[in-house]
Formats: sequence, C-alpha cells, structure tokens
Amino acid sequence: MEKEFTYCMPTQICFGAGAAKKIGDHIKGENVLIISDPFLYSNGTAKEIGDCMTGKKVTYFSEIEPNPSCESVNKAAAIAREIHADCVVGIGGGSSMDVAKAVSCLVDNEGSLYNYYSGGTHTFKPRKTMLICVPTTAGTGSEVTNVAVFTNKKIGIKMPMVNQYFWADYSVIDPELTYTLPPQMTASTGMDAFCHAIEAYWNKESVPICDMLSIGALKLIMENIKKAYDCPNDKKARGNMILASLTAGISFSQTRTTGIHALSFPLTTEFGANHGTACSITLPAFIRLVSHNLPGKMNDLAHYLGYEDGLALADAVEALMISMHMPVRLHEIGVKDSDLEHITQVGLGAAIIHLTPAEMNEETVYALLKSIL
Amino acid sequence: MEKEFTYCMPTQICFGAGAAKKIGDHIKGENVLIISDPFLYSNGTAKEIGDCMTGKKVTYFSEIEPNPSCESVNKAAAIAREIHADCVVGIGGGSSMDVAKAVSCLVDNEGSLYNYYSGGTHTFKPRKTMLICVPTTAGTGSEVTNVAVFTNKKIGIKMPMVNQYFWADYSVIDPELTYTLPPQMTASTGMDAFCHAIEAYWNKESVPICDMLSIGALKLIMENIKKAYDCPNDKKARGNMILASLTAGISFSQTRTTGIHALSFPLTTEFGANHGTACSITLPAFIRLVSHNLPGKMNDLAHYLGYEDGLALADAVEALMISMHMPVRLHEIGVKDSDLEHITQVGLGAAIIHLTPAEMNEETVYALLKSIL
Repeated sequence: MEKEFTYCMPTQICFGAGAAKKIGDHIKGENVLIISDPFLYSNGTAKEIGDCMTGKKVTYFSEIEPNPSCESVNKAAAIAREIHADCVVGIGGGSSMDVAKAVSCLVDNEGSLYNYYSGGTHTFKPRKTMLICVPTTAGTGSEVTNVAVFTNKKIGIKMPMVNQYFWADYSVIDPELTYTLPPQMTASTGMDAFCHAIEAYWNKESVPICDMLSIGALKLIMENIKKAYDCPNDKKARGNMILASLTAGISFSQTRTTGIHALSFPLTTEFGANHGTACSITLPAFIRLVSHNLPGKMNDLAHYLGYEDGLALADAVEALMISMHMPVRLHEIGVKDSDLEHITQVGLGAAIIHLTPAEMNEETVYALLKSIL
Repeated sequence: MEKEFTYCMPTQICFGAGAAKKIGDHIKGENVLIISDPFLYSNGTAKEIGDCMTGKKVTYFSEIEPNPSCESVNKAAAIAREIHADCVVGIGGGSSMDVAKAVSCLVDNEGSLYNYYSGGTHTFKPRKTMLICVPTTAGTGSEVTNVAVFTNKKIGIKMPMVNQYFWADYSVIDPELTYTLPPQMTASTGMDAFCHAIEAYWNKESVPICDMLSIGALKLIMENIKKAYDCPNDKKARGNMILASLTAGISFSQTRTTGIHALSFPLTTEFGANHGTACSITLPAFIRLVSHNLPGKMNDLAHYLGYEDGLALADAVEALMISMHMPVRLHEIGVKDSDLEHITQVGLGAAIIHLTPAEMNEETVYALLKSIL
C-alpha cells in the first residue's frame, strides 16, 4: 500500500434484531419528526417505531415518493420547523433517509433545499438537530453515507448531494424490519448493495479499508440473497443481507460509485426502472469490462468468492439475477436501440462515471449498452 | 448474522506516504503541544513534523517512557495548560499517543489523571482541545482507539483506560515514519497488530464489520511482516504493515482484546518484555486453544490465509516468529516455572481475559502458560 487515502465514517451503528425498539435510548430532546413513505405509514411500521419513543412528541410525515423531489424535502422541512424538531428520523429505503438528511439540516438553516442543492449558492451551517436513520430494505446503504439523491423536477434530473452534515448521528439497523420485504424488492435492493460494494472495490478512488469491507459484503450477498429471496423468513439470511448492505454502504460512502450508478440515473428517470434494477442491469457487463482492465484485483475478488476469474464471476452474477427474475437485458425494461445514444450522453454527464477503472467515452459506453440491449 | 452489535469509530484518517507533512492542514487554533518519546525528539522526527505546522506556536514534551505512568501524563498536562494548548499531537508508538489522549482531556478538565483513572471518581467533560495521533510504528493501533494504557506506579499495575473523548479528531498515518524502524521493533510491533486483529476476530464480543477488517489485516501481516523485517526500506511492505496496524486497531477498538493481552501485562511489568513480544509469545498457544473451541470461524480464517486449519496457522505463526528471532517460549524472557502461578493470577485479574472464547480459569491459564514455558 503506497496509495493515499482518507477515511471517515462517524455514524454510531446499532445493529440487531429488535434494535429499532430501543431507538428511544438514542434520542435527545422532545420533538421528533419521523419521515417515511406512505406504505410504511399505512402498514404501521413507522407508527410502531414511533411508539417506542417513550416520552417524546412524535409527528409523522409520510409523503415520500421514490426518487424524492426537492419539493418533498421542503414540505417536510416546513413541518420540522413548525414542530421545532430536536430529532429527525428517516425510516425506509434510500428515499426517506435521504429526505431526513436534508430536513435535519434545514431545521437549523434558512431557505429551501434549492438554496443549497444543484446550483444553490448557500452552504449548510452545522446542524443541532439530531439525525437518525433506520433502513427497512437491505440495499441503499444510505444509513451510513453523507450522500442524498434528489430529483430536481424543474429540470427533470436526479442528482446526488454530498454534505458533511448528512452523516447520521445514529443508524439503527434492525433485520426484523426486512422480514416482510417482498422477493422482487429483496432482489433489487440486494443487488443495489452488490453494486455499491463492487463499485467501491474497483473504484479509481478505492480505499483499502473499504476494499476489506467490500469483499466481505460481496461474499455475504452471494451466499444469502437467493436464500432471502426464496424464504423471506430466513432470519439468518435477512441479517446477513442487511449487514452486507451496511458494509457496502460504508465502502461507497468513502469512494462514491462508478459507471453502473451513472447509467442507472437515466434508466430510472426515463424508463421507470427501480434503482436496484437500473443499477444491476449493467452490472455483469461492467464486471466483464473491469476484469479486463484490472485483472489482478478482480481475480483476487473472484477467487475469494469461489470463482475462477472475473468473467466467471460476471456469469454467476447474471445467472443469479435471472434466477431471481430480474431483467438482464435493456429491452426488458423498455429501452430501444434508438435510446442508447441518449442514455450514453446522460450517463457521461454524471461525474462518477469517470471513477470507473476503464475509459468511459461515447464509444465505450455505447458499446457496453449495446452489448446488453 | 443474528447477533447484536454496536460500532463507532469517528476519527478522520489521513493515510499516505508524506501525510505527516500536511498535518498543519488539520490543526485549528494556534498553540500546539507535541508529545513524543526522547528518541523521536533527539532524532529530529518530532521537530520535523512540528516544522510542518506553519504559523503555529509549537511546544515539545518528549519525556514519555514506555508503559507511561500517570505522573508523565500529569507533567505533560501541566505544560499543555500553561501554553493554553488548542491542539495536542501524540507522535510515536502507543505510549505517546496514549499520553496525548489523556492530556487533550486534562486541558479542559481540572485535577490530575488520578482523579479520572483507576479508582478516580471524576469523569471528563467534553474536550475542546483538538487531538491528533501520528503513529511511528506499525503495531499499537492506538491512533484509532478510545483506549489508553497507563501504569499506576503507586500500585505497580498497568491498566487500560477507556474514554469517549480519547478518539482522536485526526489520525495521520504516514508509512514514511516507519522506514527507519529497526527489524526487532518491526517484528514485535507487527506481531502486536496481529494479536489485535485475531483477538478482535475470535472475541466473544466480536463485531462482523471488524471481522472483515481483521481478516484483511491478518493477511497483510502474514504477507508483509517478514519483508519489512528483512528489508526495512521495502516501501510497499511498510505501507501494508501500517495499513494492517490501522485496520487491526479499528477492529479491536470495538471489541477489546482477550487473553493474549491480559497475560501480556504481567510479562511486561514484571519481566520487562516489550509489549509486542509479551503479547505474541502466547499467540500460537492461544490460536491452538481457540481453534479447538471455535473451529468453524478459525478454519475460515486459516483457509483465507492459505492454511489447512487453525493448528496449521498456529505453526506458521510460530515459525514466522522464530524466523524473526522472537522468543516463543516463556523461559526465553526469564520466566521460571515458579512464576507461572503468579502470572496466571495477574492475568485472570484483567477483565478482558474473559472475552477469550474459551474457559479461562486458574487451571486452564496455568496449563496454557506451562505448555510454552
């Protein structure tokens, strides 16, 4: 190791079946805003967690949509300010946690998210409002990153926002919250975590500490995702999947992602693919490409996971996706040949694409997409 | 994974050859106290790092002895208070960094270390004084723990102190600082890091995130320690060793250590063995014992490192130690048969011994020591 790197992940992690029931132990102050999506509110999950906050005044905001908009953030922030929130809790997949990150900052900072995000000129002052993240899927890793992704509806673009105050004070990781995840969501969110881990591992800005976590996460996913898909009640598999998502999250929190995530943005905003599907659909092709450019590191990984080389790993990942009825060709999500040029352009517009350890230009990206049309 | 755990390591890590030269970038405030041992002061290392702190008023305290006493801490704290230190920097092996941890707290807290440590009734208020750790060996991992070990000379006992304010704000990990470590110190400090990683891995309170870091650290040590011992200028091996020490440090910062460290305390205080030697001398015996009790996990580790099983790993570790002229029998450091009972008693007095995944009592510990007399 002669490489330079920095590493910092200050969030306190509390992991365990039943951990969500102890969430009240961590909360300072009285007024709590719980942010979730409508489904987690109507099925009682958000309420059940709120009920564990003995002695707190809990308000619920449950209007979070997938790929949340700046408007949703502003709406939630208005409520947080109104109730003088001491603590904002994001419960859900990436969306609710991402919104909670911005809202916890907006309580102590004037104006709307547009003042701070995507062309906004303001910067956040330190927040005093506490931020707690509670993931309910095993995929996004958002509970341990300082990144949030918002959709700017004004210009129709989904873009990440990185901020030092987006690190949660606590992340409460409770596998029990994932026991009822339906198989298709188990598959897509689990493969999102796979992408986080492998994109951190092969990243041009890879961090050796994260490499160790990534290979651990990838092994857990290869060994457990199908079990969790087949038997939603397999507690051990569920625990291992949310642990994998967590460690993959720590990894990519330091390195950011690469081409897979860059290309997922147009596949989600323009073709409606959910995030995990939009990512993993290009995953086998990227594994093949990177294995060519980074054979030593990719062989090490493949061997650790029990495969001959990177190409064999790519085949195994593709077979795994097919076994979980996930699309592995772009036409399956409605992409046509005539769309490839545009997807290429949008993907190349995301800075993270250049963290891929391969030349990423109009020609190479188009060829990669074409190979999996 | 159905186990409960918590994890938090908030220190910002800056790693790289030459990283120490950029230390000034991290320091807020004007008055800096650099704490080191006399050797690092006389050979110019402390001064060289201080000279990189452009625009700061730097004071040096270099009276740190191995296994530092509470008196040394109090002496350094008096100076830190006198100069109104904004930042305390510990440069060295564990001793200087451990002293810096306590001193950074004592600047903002009245009284002497005895008020807070080992029977003291006070608790530290949050410190405002910045704490930066700079390791110059690849072993202690003290740069990423909230633990410091002090010797209470009044009662002749070496004991760890754990405190939430002992996490450094920054740790600057610069492999260049280890290029001149003599072979014997490379061996003993490197094997200390090995013990940290494996004691975290087999710990009763093991943390899955740390297991991933531990196996990574153990692999790096097995592949690099002899290279660094044989060729002190092997930059790649030096970088890998200090990276291993860092990741092993993160691991045991969450789990604490086990029997190896518990027994090392009397071997150091009463037989004068340096810390790494006092730890690693019982390492092969502990690997054999734990492999018997925890065969699945120890086999996984052994396979990852390229060995048939835990017993083969123990043999390999012992051979590695012999190849670096480290003692592997207690009589080599002056222990006699008649000392074993006393060492057993003192070892059993350290709470961490019961984190070993094996029954630790007068009989079993005595038998373990006897087997390597």
